Amino acid sequence: MSLQFHRVALVGKYQDSASSAVPDSTREIIAEIAGFLTAQGCQVVLAERTAHSTGLDQYPALDVATIGNECDLAVVVGGDGTMLGIGRQLARYGTPLIGINQGRLGFITDIPLEGYHETLSAMLGGAFEEDHRSLMHGKVMREGECVFEAFAMNDVVVNRGAVASMVELRVEVNGHFVANHRADGIIVATPTGSTAYALSAGGPLLHPLVPAWALVPIAPHTLSNRPIVVADPVEIAIEIVSGKDASASFDMQSLASLHHGDRIVVRRSEFRVRFLHPTGWSYFDTLRKKLHWNEGGV
Amino acid sequence: MSLQFHRVALVGKYQDSASSAVPDSTREIIAEIAGFLTAQGCQVVLAERTAHSTGLDQYPALDVATIGNECDLAVVVGGDGTMLGIGRQLARYGTPLIGINQGRLGFITDIPLEGYHETLSAMLGGAFEEDHRSLMHGKVMREGECVFEAFAMNDVVVNRGAVASMVELRVEVNGHFVANHRADGIIVATPTGSTAYALSAGGPLLHPLVPAWALVPIAPHTLSNRPIVVADPVEIAIEIVSGKDASASFDMQSLASLHHGDRIVVRRSEFRVRFLHPTGWSYFDTLRKKLHWNEGGV
Amino acid sequence: MSLQFHRVALVGKYQDSASSAVPDSTREIIAEIAGFLTAQGCQVVLAERTAHSTGLDQYPALDVATIGNECDLAVVVGGDGTMLGIGRQLARYGTPLIGINQGRLGFITDIPLEGYHETLSAMLGGAFEEDHRSLMHGKVMREGECVFEAFAMNDVVVNRGAVASMVELRVEVNGHFVANHRADGIIVATPTGSTAYALSAGGPLLHPLVPAWALVPIAPHTLSNRPIVVADPVEIAIEIVSGKDASASFDMQSLASLHHGDRIVVRRSEFRVRFLHPTGWSYFDTLRKKLHWNEGGV
Amino acid sequence: MSLQFHRVALVGKYQDSASSAVPDSTREIIAEIAGFLTAQGCQVVLAERTAHSTGLDQYPALDVATIGNECDLAVVVGGDGTMLGIGRQLARYGTPLIGINQGRLGFITDIPLEGYHETLSAMLGGAFEEDHRSLMHGKVMREGECVFEAFAMNDVVVNRGAVASMVELRVEVNGHFVANHRADGIIVATPTGSTAYALSAGGPLLHPLVPAWALVPIAPHTLSNRPIVVADPVEIAIEIVSGKDASASFDMQSLASLHHGDRIVVRRSEFRVRFLHPTGWSYFDTLRKKLHWNEGGV
Repeated sequence: MSLQFHRVALVGKYQDSASSAVPDSTREIIAEIAGFLTAQGCQVVLAERTAHSTGLDQYPALDVATIGNECDLAVVVGGDGTMLGIGRQLARYGTPLIGINQGRLGFITDIPLEGYHETLSAMLGGAFEEDHRSLMHGKVMREGECVFEAFAMNDVVVNRGAVASMVELRVEVNGHFVANHRADGIIVATPTGSTAYALSAGGPLLHPLVPAWALVPIAPHTLSNRPIVVADPVEIAIEIVSGKDASASFDMQSLASLHHGDRIVVRRSEFRVRFLHPTGWSYFDTLRKKLHWNEGGV
Repeated sequence: MSLQFHRVALVGKYQDSASSAVPDSTREIIAEIAGFLTAQGCQVVLAERTAHSTGLDQYPALDVATIGNECDLAVVVGGDGTMLGIGRQLARYGTPLIGINQGRLGFITDIPLEGYHETLSAMLGGAFEEDHRSLMHGKVMREGECVFEAFAMNDVVVNRGAVASMVELRVEVNGHFVANHRADGIIVATPTGSTAYALSAGGPLLHPLVPAWALVPIAPHTLSNRPIVVADPVEIAIEIVSGKDASASFDMQSLASLHHGDRIVVRRSEFRVRFLHPTGWSYFDTLRKKLHWNEGGV
Repeated sequence: MSLQFHRVALVGKYQDSASSAVPDSTREIIAEIAGFLTAQGCQVVLAERTAHSTGLDQYPALDVATIGNECDLAVVVGGDGTMLGIGRQLARYGTPLIGINQGRLGFITDIPLEGYHETLSAMLGGAFEEDHRSLMHGKVMREGECVFEAFAMNDVVVNRGAVASMVELRVEVNGHFVANHRADGIIVATPTGSTAYALSAGGPLLHPLVPAWALVPIAPHTLSNRPIVVADPVEIAIEIVSGKDASASFDMQSLASLHHGDRIVVRRSEFRVRFLHPTGWSYFDTLRKKLHWNEGGV
Repeated sequence: MSLQFHRVALVGKYQDSASSAVPDSTREIIAEIAGFLTAQGCQVVLAERTAHSTGLDQYPALDVATIGNECDLAVVVGGDGTMLGIGRQLARYGTPLIGINQGRLGFITDIPLEGYHETLSAMLGGAFEEDHRSLMHGKVMREGECVFEAFAMNDVVVNRGAVASMVELRVEVNGHFVANHRADGIIVATPTGSTAYALSAGGPLLHPLVPAWALVPIAPHTLSNRPIVVADPVEIAIEIVSGKDASASFDMQSLASLHHGDRIVVRRSEFRVRFLHPTGWSYFDTLRKKLHWNEGGV
């Protein structure tokens, strides 16, 4: 097979502290994969932070924008969080991503580090399946002005304050009033996010091909306030009606202390994230493994 | 406004027994609406069974196929069940339907009988919104042969036998293995069906514009077997692995005593059902009313 | 019927601000009920705060301890919150409480203000049913010292911080390890609290006669972490394992910024709250009304 | 340690067909355990069916009543189903049971076959903990006459017919009307049954020490029809209001084709089942293992 991807960026796990060095094991893993990619004929570059945290200096270190503009592929080594973080940033460039999971299987980082060589080699040669994930663009509007904005691959969450009893949220979809929810909060989840927080809060699993989002209330006061799945080109607006210290989070990047009248507005981004999986990949296989189905449990 | 629909079929509630006469009140309602439609300039015909059960003989009585071929509109008077029944049959002809609810508000029969004149008059003049609903085509395959087939607007349900402890069902989506469910059964619901049985079993609400179906296990043995929403052009196959006297129902039309190895195969029908609603209609308004949201309850 | 209760304390709704006067309507209601009780032959006293906020000065104004020591009955006018507040304080004195709901029906304030005279008159004469509710005593232990303690009639809630992703909580019952919950939090609810926050979070309804508490995880990461009902003489301990800014609330009285290693310890109080209901009262009637059962909804 | 139990009955897995022989492996296991018990100083007897199905004829073969009257202990080898079956029958005699699980861990058969010797030896010497389980006595009343009655350790289930859309059930507790449930059915579960079907249907876990039962509706039409836990000395009555071919099951022993007006009446049995567990046994340890908590899953 001929090589489908020439310039390949290698991205490691983000550290909590940018300055801290990664463990030696991570350094070795990155070095090993970089060597393997080079041997396969790829030109390897490292994400700036990965170069910095590993101290590997024999490869060019590029910032995300340059990776997006100049690389054909990003190989991500870490967990789902790492993959979501870099995926969100590379979406606008259309750069495809392959995820190698360092640790336990992720929902989207599905190639085990152990014995990755064969799988990765086949994928570099073109044996892969594309899996496109929608991206949300969220804004917080206050008195007509945008005071915060961010992309989210998983979810936009509006929450009550820590010691408040609840928050009242007015939800609108495409300008239509849906409901006033009195609850701990509400989650707007993409299919990607449907296996994360939304699942814990009682939301359904959405297959990545479903062009829709789930609106999942968290501990709603009204028992019939069930999760609603809406077609994703819509605009969803959530207004803080009452409740102290409400906050909004976009893939965990939070804006706290929202005011009454603040509106969190979520739309589909024009960009999408391109994940590549080994040939034969099935979303359902991953679900089954991650959710421990058919293990003879209760 | 000029009349948009010339030939209009009027369809009343189906009786349990085809031979039984409807109550006088129903007869009067149908007669009144027929008179109103005539006064609006429509040519009125009655569905055969409606003509028969009401004894109204001054209008042509047509079978469903002729209504489908010759009428521009069907006005249905009854509840959601009546609307689903005739909608399923008219889907192949593309005939639009308007629902007048005789009794309490339905999810899809949303015009109250009380004072319907103004609303219906406006709709006949073109003031309406279209709401298309997908239709499922289901088959039961036994040793390679189709032993039953039917359309469903709400759901296809596979159930354990009445006194069996559970059924084991192998679920596949587009040929991919999803899971072996040990449960009371499983529901494949359209957006229309997501407010029916699937909701009781813990499924999400699917907005009608979401091109997807919900797979909802009923009392699954494995607690992480959560509802899954899949994109609707798929083929869903459910195989009876074990369990006595399993049955399959297509919008409540049932085939009992399924065998091990029987496969229930569900695909999207090429047809869809066209509901017309008054201008300003919102799906969410109906949800709010039907589910008693924002009523100051608990 | 002869009078069963001689000295009766009248307690009105607490105001958010202790200094603010109540609306005239509330003042009139309290005055009217005080007059009625006097006419029935009772000696009426007012709770200090009620006397202060209404300005009614013709009745003795007593603090809660004196009411507990000297009164035979407390008549509470307000909602469930008012009833819980005063019930918690009077529990140690064994003073029975009757609740008149000003506004909509409560779970425990079940006598409508409209036409309360006949019901209350009968109850003063002995026509009532007793309904005892358990009380929890909770403490927050830090490095072996108690840094907060409170009674709770509804629930003790341990919650993640507002912008934290989750909290990890180690739960023990009578010294037995139950589970490490990664979740938004966990609720320990009495039967009284089982109709409050715990219900929103997916907990069961506990009849007041069930001597047990419900442990209800909020949005648990592990889908099989279901609510557990444990016999109530137990000691429940919840330890903060990880998570930023966790808080503990005892009937909404909160202690924020818990540390890792802090333990929230909950035991049954030796006291219980005595509610009196009209003869023929049924807990299930109240449930049915509050939860809108059998209303012909969906 | 001196022997606490002298005459010990050994009970194996029931076969589907009474006449069929068990696999050789089961025969060997029973023989091995019988030998071990004899060596410990016990007088061993076999349950009649176990003697028959294994062909082991060197031990006396007794029927259940004789075991109940003459033995000090029953050692059960099999799964939870075997344990429930014999436990239900021995309850009236007060005979304690020890469960050795042949296959995977059960909720109540908690001693692994592998290496059972040490555990069993300690238990015979008195190192055990008692775990008493309540038993339900259920009857089906038709026009004032009892047409069926049975004991149940897990649950009494009332179900709709296989191809009926739902059943309407009137539920009463101690003569108080609770609700009319339109649903697939309703489960009355003991704490023992709370980990079985009731859990799949959304019920809570009830610790065995909680003297209460869970009433769990199955796929209820009304979304606020949540599980209710009621104190267990009550009488629960469930009346078939409408629905075709409803059935009642008592631990899976079923009576089909119930009539409208039939009443299923459930009370606490005066008997209880005595399980013995190894010292240090914790109900929560079993829950954690069976429900896969804290396994680092999703």
